[in-house]
Amino acid sequence: MTSFEEAETEETAACLHMTFYHPCQNDKMMFHCLNFCKREQVRADEMAKFGRDPNICHYNLVDTRVSRIQFSLQFYRKLNSSELCFEIKNMSKKTKLFVDHTELGYLNKIDLPWKCIVCFGDYQILMEIQEGESLDYFETHLCLSKVPILQEKCIPLVQPLPENSIIPSLFPSQGKSPIEIDENESC
Amino acid sequence: MTSFEEAETEETAACLHMTFYHPCQNDKMMFHCLNFCKREQVRADEMAKFGRDPNICHYNLVDTRVSRIQFSLQFYRKLNSSELCFEIKNMSKKTKLFVDHTELGYLNKIDLPWKCIVCFGDYQILMEIQEGESLDYFETHLCLSKVPILQEKCIPLVQPLPENSIIPSLFPSQGKSPIEIDENESC
Repeated sequence: MTSFEEAETEETAACLHMTFYHPCQNDKMMFHCLNFCKREQVRADEMAKFGRDPNICHYNLVDTRVSRIQFSLQFYRKLNSSELCFEIKNMSKKTKLFVDHTELGYLNKIDLPWKCIVCFGDYQILMEIQEGESLDYFETHLCLSKVPILQEKCIPLVQPLPENSIIPSLFPSQGKSPIEIDENESC
Repeated sequence: MTSFEEAETEETAACLHMTFYHPCQNDKMMFHCLNFCKREQVRADEMAKFGRDPNICHYNLVDTRVSRIQFSLQFYRKLNSSELCFEIKNMSKKTKLFVDHTELGYLNKIDLPWKCIVCFGDYQILMEIQEGESLDYFETHLCLSKVPILQEKCIPLVQPLPENSIIPSLFPSQGKSPIEIDENESC
């Protein structure tokens, strides 16, 4: 047994905090397979996959409108830097994935900003990166939000717009603290 | 059954041609689990993994000096472009991976140039990308080279260098057709 004095210095692990919201989460229970409020370790050489197929995706969304694999996350080190990053990749042929204002089609990928909102279909996920040192693994920490992460109501697409009108941006109030999480529900 | 006239237009798949060489390949047989000269399909949502652990790596290198996962390849689409790319990631904590002149440490990754030489330890792999259209899968095509892919002899690292001497670049003759593949052996 290694004594306390001889043990290797403990490393912190990077953690990806993810807060989920779907308008039908209480009726459709699509999140009931997610392990909320418990940190989980993911090996650095594995992809964290989110989607409908539990044989492929550790993070399983129980919803027929979700793709077999909806998106994946990988952990990597930037070249010529010690910076550890997360990259998100849209694995759905049917559904676009939005990372803040950036639209990802099938097989498009992008670095996750340290704090961002990821959307696909009616799903909203607030993602926040907590830095760490370990190169062996990272952690995920999932929470549930009782209220929408995007507060603003989008104009329904069926509503006719007058010609030359300015189309509002998808997330117009972003940056104006759009996140309200019910503490009792979230964790 | 769909008739010839009604069938969807056939798509070509991108193919990654990989030509392997190791100086001890005849004695150590580290490549005997690789399926040479047969094109294999890899689903676009999967990583192609190369390494010692056959439970994780479809492309298995039978050599105790190879890491459990040595490197992985993923297929993706560039943002705001229809371009299909391959990305290589070094998954070995112990061994650097070179993509032409670029050194990748553990968890570093880089886009594969359309033609390049990948090296780790004594392994040399010539990689050539053949473009395709399919977004569902890509192909791999592995060959064996009887002769080194890098022709030049590196100066042994133990040989002392005079001060202020110029250290030769790792692959000084690259671009000057360094590849000689024995047709009988390679495919």
